[in-house]
Amino acid sequence: MRMYDIIEKKRDNSELSYEELKFFVDGVCKESIPDYQVSALLMAIFLRGMSPRETSDLAMLMAESGEILDLSPVNGIKVDKHSTGGVGDKTTLVVAPIVAACGVPVIKMSGRGLGFTGGTVDKLESIPGFRTSLGKGEIIRNAEKHGISLTGHGAEMVPADKKLYALRDVTATVDSIPLIASSIMSKKIASGADKILLDVKCGKGAFIKTLEDAMELAGLMVDIGKRVKKETAALVTNMDSPLGNAVGNILEVIEAIETLKGKGPADLETLSLELAAHMLFLAGQGEIEYCRRMAKDALDSRKALEKLREMVNAQGGDEEALDNYTVFKQALYRREIKSEKDGFVESIDAGLIGRASVVLGAGRETKDSPVDHSAGIYLYKKPGTMVEKGETLATLYTNN
Amino acid sequence: MRMYDIIEKKRDNSELSYEELKFFVDGVCKESIPDYQVSALLMAIFLRGMSPRETSDLAMLMAESGEILDLSPVNGIKVDKHSTGGVGDKTTLVVAPIVAACGVPVIKMSGRGLGFTGGTVDKLESIPGFRTSLGKGEIIRNAEKHGISLTGHGAEMVPADKKLYALRDVTATVDSIPLIASSIMSKKIASGADKILLDVKCGKGAFIKTLEDAMELAGLMVDIGKRVKKETAALVTNMDSPLGNAVGNILEVIEAIETLKGKGPADLETLSLELAAHMLFLAGQGEIEYCRRMAKDALDSRKALEKLREMVNAQGGDEEALDNYTVFKQALYRREIKSEKDGFVESIDAGLIGRASVVLGAGRETKDSPVDHSAGIYLYKKPGTMVEKGETLATLYTNN
Repeated sequence: MRMYDIIEKKRDNSELSYEELKFFVDGVCKESIPDYQVSALLMAIFLRGMSPRETSDLAMLMAESGEILDLSPVNGIKVDKHSTGGVGDKTTLVVAPIVAACGVPVIKMSGRGLGFTGGTVDKLESIPGFRTSLGKGEIIRNAEKHGISLTGHGAEMVPADKKLYALRDVTATVDSIPLIASSIMSKKIASGADKILLDVKCGKGAFIKTLEDAMELAGLMVDIGKRVKKETAALVTNMDSPLGNAVGNILEVIEAIETLKGKGPADLETLSLELAAHMLFLAGQGEIEYCRRMAKDALDSRKALEKLREMVNAQGGDEEALDNYTVFKQALYRREIKSEKDGFVESIDAGLIGRASVVLGAGRETKDSPVDHSAGIYLYKKPGTMVEKGETLATLYTNN
Repeated sequence: MRMYDIIEKKRDNSELSYEELKFFVDGVCKESIPDYQVSALLMAIFLRGMSPRETSDLAMLMAESGEILDLSPVNGIKVDKHSTGGVGDKTTLVVAPIVAACGVPVIKMSGRGLGFTGGTVDKLESIPGFRTSLGKGEIIRNAEKHGISLTGHGAEMVPADKKLYALRDVTATVDSIPLIASSIMSKKIASGADKILLDVKCGKGAFIKTLEDAMELAGLMVDIGKRVKKETAALVTNMDSPLGNAVGNILEVIEAIETLKGKGPADLETLSLELAAHMLFLAGQGEIEYCRRMAKDALDSRKALEKLREMVNAQGGDEEALDNYTVFKQALYRREIKSEKDGFVESIDAGLIGRASVVLGAGRETKDSPVDHSAGIYLYKKPGTMVEKGETLATLYTNN
């Protein structure tokens, strides 16, 4: 088999076989295929697309390129949850404790933020002492004992995806729906869960801008789940405005804790409960309405808040952070933005807010940039709210 | 300017500006753009195409990436001729002496053969002693004195094309009509001629298989010529059957000499006279019919043959080769292929003959393969000829 022929075949709009995709993924990992041939194929895939079968094969092959976590020691149906990322999306911090509090184990590996979409690992690390790099043994032990473990991806997982992503990032081949779908699903397969719930974000503050693309991506990933025998469900949710009021790592962790205390913004609470209900449903806890009630009970009873506390303790974090927010690092500078006139907030562009938060230090310009945990933006007025002249619209936090 | 943005722009089907193409060509030459970005752009160009303006800019920029020969010391309108290559295409060896014998200077740089399409440089080098690597000064002096100089491309010419071709060759992006057009025209521009005549070969023994593609390529190159202010004309000619009877370097040189002696195959003589007439026409020698007569006279009077002799002498070759073909290296082995039955030769597949000649040693498998000058195939029966059982159809020559 020759890489040249594989490039030519995709260039001419033919479907690549499993064996051809395997040759490609193996060659990428072993570095036996030069980067210039890999990037030529990536561009051909970008412009020609891939069939659901090719996309699914690629996802599986990338997952198999590294270690696949074995979660079988943990009892019960393990459900993973993934968001394609948006501005102010801290749902994992709310959803995972709710589901775990309902007795369904949650073992979730998350990424770091890049650009204006934050990463769960960055948020977790803003809790003083919290460790996100756990060994396999500790992940399993924590899940068995506490029913919850939130960590970063292991270095030995999905190496093919890491290499391909690095090349896609510099060759304008990131925004390909089949490549995105196979990348996300490869990580979910490798994380070892039995079932997968996807939150596909769509709008100005997401990398998918149109409902059509979001539906296509969601459908493709659900199809991949079916093909690899991991039941997968997807919600397509709006990301035109930031989720909740807080954007930035510490601000978002605090908002998640407040939500678990029943004092969170309505949009965040609603979405978190809905995601939790679908995870419980996938885990076979009952009809969706029943699962919605289970989730609401776990929130209202503060059992979910206590589950978060349990996890923070188990992973070396300072549990006082849940009760006393001064434990968090404080930003050196803050500036209030006041309204210059009376009126209504018509809309808040999540993309612009996201980019502003990156400028303040809350996000990464490049993969290797540091993140300022205390930087961010707090929005006081959601769209549709009346505002008087001189009222505070937002507070900016930065150390810069 | 960033290469990423240029890739993205072409990927999204937009036209690249002159400045963007210049950034790209400069970066390729300086090696400041990594190969994986170059190949991603090449694939995007392959699948999205390029406008005539982009193609012309690319041709000019590639020409300017190296030395452009200054032919102004040589008096008269200098017309270059280029064939896109075919099996048995030895027209340059006939056409150039005819045109030069008519008093129009011919300074032509040719390539080596690759695959089944032979190269003029390989054919010339099969004449004992003939030198194809001439310095600029010698090229000009020979052209001034003898009106003719046939050489290889200088190492310092079109470096951008050389680098891009090497990458195209391994990323399945060779067969792109705009990339082919800009590559050919960059070399023609760099060779410094005032006007250009193109022979676009089309059929089984050419790399362009369909008339439609050949017409598109021809039109695009004529358009580039117009844009760079070098009048360009193109003939699209058939290459389903080999041209003439001889395929292989020495066999073809002998056939060209025979043609200049008035004893060549009809198809080769006809095409050579037509190409010569068009070169004379471009050089402003008169109406096309008049130019046809000029070319015929130069052939019939043997002035063209004497011009070839003059050039062979001037470039160190053994002129006896023109009178006594035993001067050429002889193949160790020859085998006659006899007809197994009576009948007509319906067609001869130039592609298959070409590939067979490569197997015998007459062509190059890869750029660095050596060529066996004495290997080849001589075809006795052209399509449409009656053949009796036992008659010789072809003789194969090899040292292998």
